[in-house]
Amino acid sequence: MTKTHEIVIDKVKESKINSIDFSNLTFGKTFTDHMLECTWRDGEWHTAEIKPYGPIQVEPSCKVFHYGQAIFEGMKAFKDGEGDVFLFRPEDNWIRFNESAKRLAMPEVPKEVFMEGLKKLVNLDKEWVRYGEGLSLYLRPFMIASENGVAAAPGTEYKFMIIMSPAFAYYKGDVRVIIASEFSRAADGGVGYAKAAGNYAASFYPNNLALEEGYQQIIWTDAASHEYLEEAGTMNIFVRIGDKLLTAPNNDRILNGVTRRSIMQMAKDHGITVEERRVSVKELTAAANDGSLKEIFGTGTAAVIVPIKGYKHEDFKFELPTLESSYATLLMGALKDIQYNRAEDQHGWRVKI
Amino acid sequence: MTKTHEIVIDKVKESKINSIDFSNLTFGKTFTDHMLECTWRDGEWHTAEIKPYGPIQVEPSCKVFHYGQAIFEGMKAFKDGEGDVFLFRPEDNWIRFNESAKRLAMPEVPKEVFMEGLKKLVNLDKEWVRYGEGLSLYLRPFMIASENGVAAAPGTEYKFMIIMSPAFAYYKGDVRVIIASEFSRAADGGVGYAKAAGNYAASFYPNNLALEEGYQQIIWTDAASHEYLEEAGTMNIFVRIGDKLLTAPNNDRILNGVTRRSIMQMAKDHGITVEERRVSVKELTAAANDGSLKEIFGTGTAAVIVPIKGYKHEDFKFELPTLESSYATLLMGALKDIQYNRAEDQHGWRVKI
Ligand SMILES: Cc1ncc(COP(=O)(O)O)c(C=O)c1O
Ligand SMILES: Cc1ncc(COP(=O)(O)O)c(C=O)c1O
Repeated sequence: MTKTHEIVIDKVKESKINSIDFSNLTFGKTFTDHMLECTWRDGEWHTAEIKPYGPIQVEPSCKVFHYGQAIFEGMKAFKDGEGDVFLFRPEDNWIRFNESAKRLAMPEVPKEVFMEGLKKLVNLDKEWVRYGEGLSLYLRPFMIASENGVAAAPGTEYKFMIIMSPAFAYYKGDVRVIIASEFSRAADGGVGYAKAAGNYAASFYPNNLALEEGYQQIIWTDAASHEYLEEAGTMNIFVRIGDKLLTAPNNDRILNGVTRRSIMQMAKDHGITVEERRVSVKELTAAANDGSLKEIFGTGTAAVIVPIKGYKHEDFKFELPTLESSYATLLMGALKDIQYNRAEDQHGWRVKI
Repeated sequence: MTKTHEIVIDKVKESKINSIDFSNLTFGKTFTDHMLECTWRDGEWHTAEIKPYGPIQVEPSCKVFHYGQAIFEGMKAFKDGEGDVFLFRPEDNWIRFNESAKRLAMPEVPKEVFMEGLKKLVNLDKEWVRYGEGLSLYLRPFMIASENGVAAAPGTEYKFMIIMSPAFAYYKGDVRVIIASEFSRAADGGVGYAKAAGNYAASFYPNNLALEEGYQQIIWTDAASHEYLEEAGTMNIFVRIGDKLLTAPNNDRILNGVTRRSIMQMAKDHGITVEERRVSVKELTAAANDGSLKEIFGTGTAAVIVPIKGYKHEDFKFELPTLESSYATLLMGALKDIQYNRAEDQHGWRVKI
């Protein structure tokens, strides 16, 4: 292996971009012209290839199908009015990706492969990043165990890939949540803090049950006692009681969200008190009852902030008040202004392509 | 969809069996001539196909790579001295497969597809089941979400497959275990009881740490308190204290093992008292100290019974005594006699192909 990681590029003959109806996209269904693929074998990363997006061949015995070694990241590229393209805190995703890799006994991806690969790939498919409110290019780095064989042990071969899908602002309708009191997402000492594929599969069945009851999402609680709020399916959770913003501390069950960190910083920049501490369902419900519970919202790369309209916990139901000036609106606006290069980037979060 | 599920067969032109060195196999690396594939799409199972074993094409956005909907089963076919081939309690695996499917929000596989598919497939590749002590054909039914798209929701397309690999008796060396006091495998209210791919990936890193310390496996404890024994990586756990055999009760964190159930029955048939109840690490260590801890063994399809030679829990280390007549040897022999059609099948466990 050479010390620097080579990235070779094989361009498509003709872009398929003109066949895409950008005003009519289903999230995560359309992919750009190119993808990145890099294989780990014999203990090292081989040459990364950027090449036409297309299917891969795998054996039915491929380890990822049987033992679930699969991790991913989710991030976005944004275009400003001048046509410049920016990534948002991409190194944070690289660091988290490797934390996930470690916990799942997978090889860590070198910074160069991840960051340079990402930049070269986005640059090549720059046309796919559209300019306009809420438009972006969703970037999906992921890694799978690609060795063949059904022995329950870590793989000896892995594929790191990046695929990209144009994304748009869409209004999903109101979001109401059930606060979990039976099912759980992650165990103490488990893999909840990793962006591991298996965590998501585990949440679908309880989420289906919630949907049947008319709730779109679940706020998970700690598996041991179901007393403390943790996070939602693909979002960290903030609660505003009075003028304070509260969010659960990171632990080994919760994903350490990039948006969460950014929103905490934005809140501080706006003089809002943020407390990173355990929030119990009891505290939440007491605040709901005495009128001090003002907002609940989720934060994540997909929608930045999703305001929660109401919640249910066992027999207790509550509708959040409609506020004239909500923290959710304020902070979402402030963060988007940075992402779309409409505001000064005080914290050095934008990375220009 | 027709009411009966059709299975069509496309045979290989020439078997590859003569190119296989049966005396020199790596577990789970060699597959037989044929496999079964059946697709669920538009809300129904389509025609099951038995066809030559070979690679499948999937898009990089295939759901299983990102959200981990993947479940499997592990079972064996055995050949007797007459050349007859038997499955062992295959319906139990079918039932468990569908319990896993439900928890992972995947469609259940019809009994006909699973059972008839299995029988037809094993029958076609009968030559691959070898006769002899410890020889068998390992059968691996599995299901993956095969839809393309990176939205975090259950897939709308699935593939159910069965692949088969010749297996042999091999001596892995002594097995010593660490009893978990930090990491955990499954949460209350989680998916530990399902044979979900993600559960295995989650165990590899802690297991690697154990290996570095010279221990081959981990006995997991409950995530909430780390006080009670649960199961090992791919085995349920039995403890013999005095003349009693103890094993943890099934719950939503533990795989409900077919071998576990069979061994409990065999023990009862031999007049051994079996208690299905929580066993604390304290109780285990007290028994180790007062000399009443006689055996610890794991049970699973792969090796039937694996005697544990020693364990470590935090700073406490213990070596199990060597017994003249162990329950492990007795029960393993009794169960193998049934599997290989050397003993009467009192409980109706064998299914002749
Ligand atoms: C489980 C989970 N929690 C929280 C988040 C939010 O993280 P981020 O803000 O980095 O997108 C995500 C990812 O989108 C997630 O999958
Ligand atoms: C986690 C786990 N526990 C226990 C077992 C034993 O189950 P069975 O006896 O059905 O093979 C297995 C499977 O082999 C397993 O994967």
